[in-house]
Amino acid sequence: MTVSDLPIERLSIHQVTLMQCDFRESIECFARHGVHQTAIWRDKLNEIGLDEAVRILQDNDMTVNALCPGGLLTEIDDKSFNAALDLNRRWIDQSAALGADSLVIITGGLADGETNLAAARDRALEGFFRLIDPARAVGIRLAVEPLHPMVCGGRSVISTVANALDLLDDLGADDVFGLAVDSYAVWWDLALSDQLARAGARLLHFHASDWLRDTKDVRFDRGMPGDGMIDNRQIRGWMEKAGFSGPVEVEIFSRDHWWQHPADEVVRTIVDRRATHL
Amino acid sequence: MTVSDLPIERLSIHQVTLMQCDFRESIECFARHGVHQTAIWRDKLNEIGLDEAVRILQDNDMTVNALCPGGLLTEIDDKSFNAALDLNRRWIDQSAALGADSLVIITGGLADGETNLAAARDRALEGFFRLIDPARAVGIRLAVEPLHPMVCGGRSVISTVANALDLLDDLGADDVFGLAVDSYAVWWDLALSDQLARAGARLLHFHASDWLRDTKDVRFDRGMPGDGMIDNRQIRGWMEKAGFSGPVEVEIFSRDHWWQHPADEVVRTIVDRRATHL
Repeated sequence: MTVSDLPIERLSIHQVTLMQCDFRESIECFARHGVHQTAIWRDKLNEIGLDEAVRILQDNDMTVNALCPGGLLTEIDDKSFNAALDLNRRWIDQSAALGADSLVIITGGLADGETNLAAARDRALEGFFRLIDPARAVGIRLAVEPLHPMVCGGRSVISTVANALDLLDDLGADDVFGLAVDSYAVWWDLALSDQLARAGARLLHFHASDWLRDTKDVRFDRGMPGDGMIDNRQIRGWMEKAGFSGPVEVEIFSRDHWWQHPADEVVRTIVDRRATHL
Repeated sequence: MTVSDLPIERLSIHQVTLMQCDFRESIECFARHGVHQTAIWRDKLNEIGLDEAVRILQDNDMTVNALCPGGLLTEIDDKSFNAALDLNRRWIDQSAALGADSLVIITGGLADGETNLAAARDRALEGFFRLIDPARAVGIRLAVEPLHPMVCGGRSVISTVANALDLLDDLGADDVFGLAVDSYAVWWDLALSDQLARAGARLLHFHASDWLRDTKDVRFDRGMPGDGMIDNRQIRGWMEKAGFSGPVEVEIFSRDHWWQHPADEVVRTIVDRRATHL
């Protein structure tokens, strides 16, 4: 399978990739290197507030693919569960104000001491149901993102594209829900190409980074595309064969390496790798 | 689903759980606590040699479930691939000499710089084919073990029970091949119960440990059953519903915790947890 080169217009860089920057610095850095798409990290948004964020995005001609992460709806007691729903309604409205296509949602993990994945999955399903009307009202898609099995229990009980599609089938609201596929989370799955074909029009987002052979942390040691074991271009090809034509959003959590480098060097490296590894 | 308590006669402890012991110390410690089944770790066997190992096992009335790990058959160049095959033939013969039921095999990972999982999987498939005759000749089963996706690429390109069963289907030799299911590797899979049902009589081994919420290492930070997020008893129940009646082999890689504790304390804890968490 030959996959065409990725034009710069389809390159997006997730704000979390520049954790060393504040909101404004990250957006200005992307723009300085000709990248005009991003995904917004909630913590960074909270630092400066919605109005200021919107101004910075407009000043830099920046398109927002998504706000991340929402969901986290596996609380057991009603009070906490309802509080989490309220937060999600707020994040949906924020997504709309940012001009984003989607709020990316993850299920949340197991409660303390809990070992029942199916029960946690059912609580998230119930929570996601309750977000259908608020999302429809403002035209925001909810993109369910499977996370890597090594964070199952802590952050998400949905670990494969197949698991996520089963959840979408149960939700039965494909005008609202879709899928965010992060290559780092699912690259190991020998069934991936089949499941991406099954996903079809439900493919809303593609996040890319790389798996390092000597991975030192289960959350914060992702690699730059090209430095590890993931064939991101092949996965993009499978997505495109299934109908996807959206941006490639590079999203690198790298506490001890890339988050310690100058932002311009990080973004320049990503732009360079576009030609060879995205 | 109610799952019956596990009798001590069905408890096995994998030798790797006592990495702080030499071969003899580990076997004697198991026997001292009434545990008379184990799985042998190759490195420990190599320390003392086959004849001495067999004597120690007989002296302690110890049944050997399996020798681990074999396989590792993803080498690209013919010379290395053939050398790996030779090693496996030797491990098969050693398994027979130990009176083991199986050699547990993992595929091996990607070559340096390689990003093609399907190609690595095909090389392992070819290697496994070549082991059919040697295994049949001595009556040793080859138990394919999926490893956790976080070691995909480094140790195994088979990460789910479904992936492993597809491989067994391709091998078409169910008198030789079967499955070793390690709860640590596959607990996160929402399709697990269905896939164990699909496996049926191919379920040869069940390894148990626990997933710690604050996992600090991708290979060597496993927990004691009961200390984490895995419902080992439920998974055993699914195995038994599919026809499995073999031992529960507790296998804990824990470099900074359990490998630093006195062996008797580790084994006593496992025996205690049998009543509540296995």
